[in-house]
Amino acid sequence: MASEDGKDHRLARISSSIRVIPDFPKPGIMFQDITTLLLDHKAFRDTIDIFVERYREKNISVVAGIEARGFIFGPPIALAIGAKFVPMRKPKKLPGEVISEEYALEYGTDKMEMHVGAVQPGDRALVIDDLIATGGTLCAAVRLLERVGADVVECACVIELPELKGREKLGHRPVFVLVKG
Amino acid sequence: MASEDGKDHRLARISSSIRVIPDFPKPGIMFQDITTLLLDHKAFRDTIDIFVERYREKNISVVAGIEARGFIFGPPIALAIGAKFVPMRKPKKLPGEVISEEYALEYGTDKMEMHVGAVQPGDRALVIDDLIATGGTLCAAVRLLERVGADVVECACVIELPELKGREKLGHRPVFVLVKG
Repeated sequence: MASEDGKDHRLARISSSIRVIPDFPKPGIMFQDITTLLLDHKAFRDTIDIFVERYREKNISVVAGIEARGFIFGPPIALAIGAKFVPMRKPKKLPGEVISEEYALEYGTDKMEMHVGAVQPGDRALVIDDLIATGGTLCAAVRLLERVGADVVECACVIELPELKGREKLGHRPVFVLVKG
Repeated sequence: MASEDGKDHRLARISSSIRVIPDFPKPGIMFQDITTLLLDHKAFRDTIDIFVERYREKNISVVAGIEARGFIFGPPIALAIGAKFVPMRKPKKLPGEVISEEYALEYGTDKMEMHVGAVQPGDRALVIDDLIATGGTLCAAVRLLERVGADVVECACVIELPELKGREKLGHRPVFVLVKG
């Protein structure tokens, strides 16, 4: 286990490896770009290590990753802690029988799908995405997992945009993040 | 290093963990579904281990993963061998400056994008996807990497559909696969 100092040092490197791109995908948005973190092998390694240290002893049986950037962070964690990896996908991407949940976008709605049978009653789930903004997509993932009887232990993201109050939408489910944008 | 027998045993488990779904995304297609492999922790672990054993000593500096299932297999390999992970994405998903390549679909074309600056001249790249069918998407990824001066060491997939002759399209770049569909 790293010291708190060691952890702060790692978080500083992770934070500085994330690039902010103004006006993407549209004017006024400061986009938090984690692709530059993925280019810094040590920062990416530290990111995964911090999550694994936190979840190793928590009896997590499912890591649910949200398309598409949750697919990058979820599998290394699932492999390290001995959990299944379950992709939460955009509509019509999963080939088997699915259940789905709508969530609100700024204009209109979108849907998230999960394979039937991938998660069982009593599974202990961790939900992973790169970023929590309004919390809408994380909430849809939580609803899918809870509908099939899983216990959502925590939602984990690399970055939080606290002013968008996504945590409030998640209710009693804890949210763990590494850095704030 | 596992014995050849050990490797055959692992490949048998990987192969049997992949589900085939008929008529997805349309009639006549037998879809190779790797989401069931991701539910079998040992099969997923073996999949990554076989790739890591193959590439550990090959001086790979970049693992390029093709959206979206290449994002699942690429990062654990990149982390294990000490390489950067570079996402190859569908249009308008990457926030920074990009270069792009068109590739043919059955009807029409699609585009793949890569961030400018993510890959440097002289980088040694491994391209990862879950499946090689006609080879069109892998070829687009290879062209992007070669345009910026990288050397494509190999393309690696979990599954090959040999009757679609994707290997021929890749020319002299080697293709490594675990199982055939």
